Amino acid sequence: MKAIVYVTIKQSVLDPQGVAVQGALHSVGFQEVESLRIGKYIEIELNTDDRAEAEKRVAAMCEKLLANTVVEEYRFELEG
Amino acid sequence: MKAIVYVTIKQSVLDPQGVAVQGALHSVGFQEVESLRIGKYIEIELNTDDRAEAEKRVAAMCEKLLANTVVEEYRFELEG
Repeated sequence: MKAIVYVTIKQSVLDPQGVAVQGALHSVGFQEVESLRIGKYIEIELNTDDRAEAEKRVAAMCEKLLANTVVEEYRFELEG
Repeated sequence: MKAIVYVTIKQSVLDPQGVAVQGALHSVGFQEVESLRIGKYIEIELNTDDRAEAEKRVAAMCEKLLANTVVEEYRFELEG
């Protein structure tokens, strides 16, 4: 089973990497960029077929290690 | 209009960050993780309503700045 995890910075928290990339896009002519935020996209191959169990385990991975829940949010999808 | 861009490392290229996170997950008890790859998830607010134009411009942003097409792949979706 495959899990796709999205980790994004909370809306209320400044995203300095996003601000920098937005500035870089403006400086090369992409003036239409109004805002930009950067998160992580994580693909995980899991050695399990139990969907309910996988859901619990991936949530635990996010809470423990993949996301910093003070400043980040996560969501995930299971495939296969 | 909003664009969601996914930038991932090509399958043939080693992802050292993914390998490190996989090792960390194993070390805290998530033995079921068989492989893990990390990419970027970028949300862009665009000041345009022209979908065809937005598609061209976002592709240009990816080629020029958001992705290193030697080792990375990108795909994107437009919303709204």
